Amino acid sequence: MADIHRINLPEKLTRFDAHWSPKIVAELNGQHVKLAKLLGEFVWHRHENEDELFLVLEGELRIELRDGEVTLREGECVVIPRGVEHKPVAEAEVHVLLFEPASTVNTGDAPGESTVDQPERI
Amino acid sequence: MADIHRINLPEKLTRFDAHWSPKIVAELNGQHVKLAKLLGEFVWHRHENEDELFLVLEGELRIELRDGEVTLREGECVVIPRGVEHKPVAEAEVHVLLFEPASTVNTGDAPGESTVDQPERI
Repeated sequence: MADIHRINLPEKLTRFDAHWSPKIVAELNGQHVKLAKLLGEFVWHRHENEDELFLVLEGELRIELRDGEVTLREGECVVIPRGVEHKPVAEAEVHVLLFEPASTVNTGDAPGESTVDQPERI
Repeated sequence: MADIHRINLPEKLTRFDAHWSPKIVAELNGQHVKLAKLLGEFVWHRHENEDELFLVLEGELRIELRDGEVTLREGECVVIPRGVEHKPVAEAEVHVLLFEPASTVNTGDAPGESTVDQPERI
């Protein structure tokens, strides 16, 4: 077989501990599927050209928006459209799956110490 | 807020019963996120221009390939690259999330009675 293999998300999540450091687990159609562990408050940012999907696998994630917020629990997801400022906040550790274009940088228009330029593949 | 809303996947799955009839639950970057319930054997097919991700939410899915097979359980996913013939088989009902370009037709190069030309949005 070509590179067609089962990707076990719970197992992948055991491979890293760092918060706010998305890891690539699959790539298709120019998009990345990433896993991330989040804890605490992230920076306000937006992605100019990328819509971003957050799917919560474990825990609870609040995404603050300039005019509201969305709270996600296990099995819930949201699409943050390109250009929309958002700030993810995790009061306790949360595990999320992200779908987004391969070009997406985690901090969008707000580069800084939280920026991960080259996400690791796991 | 703009159209930014929580999408509850288990709740969406209560909205339909039909097998092999993917429903669109989100769209981003020209891609669709779909939910589907599968039972039995699907047709052999391939997608000429679309890579396709299957993520099992409940149950067990076997994807037959011409030179092997991949079996997925809850929390496991696989990417079937464009051009690769595959046949999903579900011995018992399985619930899956699909991530694929908006252009993707479920039966790919093998149109027939199983084809869903215009997937419903739920």
